[in-house]
Amino acid sequence: MSPAYIVFVGTFVHLPRDTSKALAIQQGALWVATADGRIKGTDWTVVTEGDIRALLKEKGWVPEDASRFHSETRVKIVRAREEHNEFFFPGFIDTHIHAPQYPNNGLFGSTTLLDWLRKYTFPMEASFGSSIHNIPSPRAFRVYNQVVSRTLANGTTYASYFATIHVSATNLLATLCQKRGQRALIGRVCMDNPDFSEKYYVDPSTQESIDLNKEVISYIHSIDPQGTMVKPIITPRFALTCTPKAMQGLADLAASYDPPLHIQTHISENTQEIHDVHTQFPDAKSYADVYDTYGLLTPRTILAHGVHLTPDEQDLIHDREAKISHCPASNSALGSGICPVRKLWNKGITVGLGTDVSGGYSPSILEAVRQACLVSRLLRHVGTENGGDKGKELVLSVEEGLYLATRGGAAVVNMENDIGGFDIGMLFDAQLIRLGPFLPACKYDNGESRVDIFGWEKWQEKVHKWVWSGDDRNVKGVWVGGRLVYGEDDVEGGNRPGWWSWVLSAGVVGVGAVVAFRRMRL
Amino acid sequence: MSPAYIVFVGTFVHLPRDTSKALAIQQGALWVATADGRIKGTDWTVVTEGDIRALLKEKGWVPEDASRFHSETRVKIVRAREEHNEFFFPGFIDTHIHAPQYPNNGLFGSTTLLDWLRKYTFPMEASFGSSIHNIPSPRAFRVYNQVVSRTLANGTTYASYFATIHVSATNLLATLCQKRGQRALIGRVCMDNPDFSEKYYVDPSTQESIDLNKEVISYIHSIDPQGTMVKPIITPRFALTCTPKAMQGLADLAASYDPPLHIQTHISENTQEIHDVHTQFPDAKSYADVYDTYGLLTPRTILAHGVHLTPDEQDLIHDREAKISHCPASNSALGSGICPVRKLWNKGITVGLGTDVSGGYSPSILEAVRQACLVSRLLRHVGTENGGDKGKELVLSVEEGLYLATRGGAAVVNMENDIGGFDIGMLFDAQLIRLGPFLPACKYDNGESRVDIFGWEKWQEKVHKWVWSGDDRNVKGVWVGGRLVYGEDDVEGGNRPGWWSWVLSAGVVGVGAVVAFRRMRL
Repeated sequence: MSPAYIVFVGTFVHLPRDTSKALAIQQGALWVATADGRIKGTDWTVVTEGDIRALLKEKGWVPEDASRFHSETRVKIVRAREEHNEFFFPGFIDTHIHAPQYPNNGLFGSTTLLDWLRKYTFPMEASFGSSIHNIPSPRAFRVYNQVVSRTLANGTTYASYFATIHVSATNLLATLCQKRGQRALIGRVCMDNPDFSEKYYVDPSTQESIDLNKEVISYIHSIDPQGTMVKPIITPRFALTCTPKAMQGLADLAASYDPPLHIQTHISENTQEIHDVHTQFPDAKSYADVYDTYGLLTPRTILAHGVHLTPDEQDLIHDREAKISHCPASNSALGSGICPVRKLWNKGITVGLGTDVSGGYSPSILEAVRQACLVSRLLRHVGTENGGDKGKELVLSVEEGLYLATRGGAAVVNMENDIGGFDIGMLFDAQLIRLGPFLPACKYDNGESRVDIFGWEKWQEKVHKWVWSGDDRNVKGVWVGGRLVYGEDDVEGGNRPGWWSWVLSAGVVGVGAVVAFRRMRL
Repeated sequence: MSPAYIVFVGTFVHLPRDTSKALAIQQGALWVATADGRIKGTDWTVVTEGDIRALLKEKGWVPEDASRFHSETRVKIVRAREEHNEFFFPGFIDTHIHAPQYPNNGLFGSTTLLDWLRKYTFPMEASFGSSIHNIPSPRAFRVYNQVVSRTLANGTTYASYFATIHVSATNLLATLCQKRGQRALIGRVCMDNPDFSEKYYVDPSTQESIDLNKEVISYIHSIDPQGTMVKPIITPRFALTCTPKAMQGLADLAASYDPPLHIQTHISENTQEIHDVHTQFPDAKSYADVYDTYGLLTPRTILAHGVHLTPDEQDLIHDREAKISHCPASNSALGSGICPVRKLWNKGITVGLGTDVSGGYSPSILEAVRQACLVSRLLRHVGTENGGDKGKELVLSVEEGLYLATRGGAAVVNMENDIGGFDIGMLFDAQLIRLGPFLPACKYDNGESRVDIFGWEKWQEKVHKWVWSGDDRNVKGVWVGGRLVYGEDDVEGGNRPGWWSWVLSAGVVGVGAVVAFRRMRL
């Protein structure tokens, strides 16, 4: 019998819900009901092992390794150990990632967006097709499995994926996320404009682009009717790849569901792209206006990049309550520019972070946090309007970077009441971060961790060190809805029953069986 | 008896010496004499084990595990294994790193240069002092050991260190580098200007600043008279911290040696700093002119940053043959700006990379390569003179980033004929990079490597993936002058003698002893 609650004990770090964006650092206990994966309570007075025993006694709970009777409310205890500088942190939310591009991570040479698409991206995505209908290509299985592995290993508990134009491979990605326990929005990419697309990688027609999308939506709704783990997302690639008819048709399709489906696309990433959009849509007032004209700007729309948005476009996006996914690693790697997050915030726009694999070179949202901080510090040198002292205001603090990665991302995917923090009632989507023991105790040259803790650091400083030096090595456990979906065996091992408990359990089961058998005989 | 040669076999990647800056990727054998640590020859026809045996036979060499007689020329064989996607690459050269700041890595909040110095840096550096003369503080031992560990683990075979104002701690750093096998320039920081410095961290007087420096120089020359591993470097912190008298005195001190000592300092990192330099030195034509006036611009001078140099300053630096250390991670982290490397190259200036720990947050030169590539892609958006298409020319390719990290750095420290590549005659300062086995064979979620190789990548693409996703986990061995100074036990293990060879050796020794004994009796 699985435990009724999991009691997480130790240091918890998250960003408070208000806009102060300082770190909230608390020590104590937090418990999650395994029935629904939600946080049911906290006790920040719990410090010692005695405190834990007292808490359990007060609640009438029994540790699962000490429980002997079915009537007991069993709990599992998971500890973040102070001596290893461990803490719990909310799971990361990746609001923009192209799953099929993962093998191209790090391969972009010195290209920019439009030539990068044709040289690296379209050939890779096209290879996810299969000559046999409804059978995904072997590459799709291999790559999608790896993407989910790598993103989970980097603490990503929620991802908004672009797939390819292929139905069966897209359905496979949805299945993998569901089975492996990563929450996800799954989008079949729509690109029906033959003038922009390559002959080998294009939707056969506008109508088929929409019909194939319906197939994917129907599949995802069939495997997860409540959308607990996976949900479909309408995904017109971007304005240049879509005909007006397709964009309008996809917007109508999204609106035809209750609640309306999410929508994701790209906007204003690269100056040449913007120029081409103006050429292709000469009647539109702006790039954002193209999407608005066809009904794609909704409160459930994620717009990736938004690097060069005009103030009018920012106002329009704010009015429509659409969200922005900031992808700093990608924007630097492809030389697109720097998204001025603070300006978007000042307009009241919701912003989250995206890895934008493989325009971005890393599947890690922690890397996106670092890059968001770094490029914000360069904004003061970019363009005349940001020059000098004014640019100081555009700098993002480490705390604000982490806010984008958690609370911000949660709001981008319209889950701000469910994920992104440790508020009571929220789903426990979280990661256990281990910075490692204090130096010189840690084996500092064996690759265990890049973070060096000397012992005099405050908790806030430890978190800063994690942000600047941490990586997947520091992620020791990942939970989604209270379920461990990634982690070493020993993360929850402190609570594992010894051999004697197995014998005891077997005995209990045996006695129960005998009792049941006798009753049946009666 | 140690082997006479080490034969390295496998894939070798380096940057050729010419300015084409494409990757040179070669497969075969390269041998190094252990006597002087230099590369004596290569054979790029060696492919199979049979080829290796033929090479050894031709040379009259015997593998050390097969050697039975003292008269034989024994060789050790070290392999980069293709099935693990291993390759040899020249050791990285870090042309600018502050060793005592290492514990502050990742701690800078949202500060910029001048407030960062006072808030984080000076207090940390001051703590390296000791109340007992000639005894370094315990912190110095702990931190300096860790810096050398971490930089070696990241493949840095040569580092130009800033230490603190303390003689004994600076001497300790020199000793540690020498003992642990990392080539280094070691500089006691000079800062005698009481108007800029903090009371708790300043040279007592101009004369003492110079005298204490002589102590360090004398110590380093005493432990390494030839300067094979460690050399002193004259280190006026930067113009604001030094009096004109000290700068002139230090320049004279450097020039009084034959060859003249190296010099390192900072230049033109931050706009406020530049403004303050102009205020403090109203007669100087420019920041660079301040250093030139006092004789500090020499062919052996390393100037860190050079972010905002004017064309006239660039010309002056070129005329004096001084070098620039580009520290992109630091320049972004502290919001200093972006150094336009291509413009410096076009002026004929020599440029290398620096981590600038802890203005930079990482001790890894690979991270510096990444950041150099990234920020160069943003240059087209910085300032009006770089805008638009012109900025494209300022982009650095991955190959150019790696060039900066090896050949560039070697030239910055005036070692371009000795390190930075695999040319015959050069010192074998190198690293063995292991990307890991092809997917799905590799255990992709155990933190072994962040680099995913699917099997269809060309070698150039593997190197690009290493640059964008690699880290210290991929560094499996580091050699300096042919001596293994960092690495797992198994890196050279393929060559270790089995038990039978020990028995055989013991037998040979035993027979020899009996023979010798009998002769003595005669």
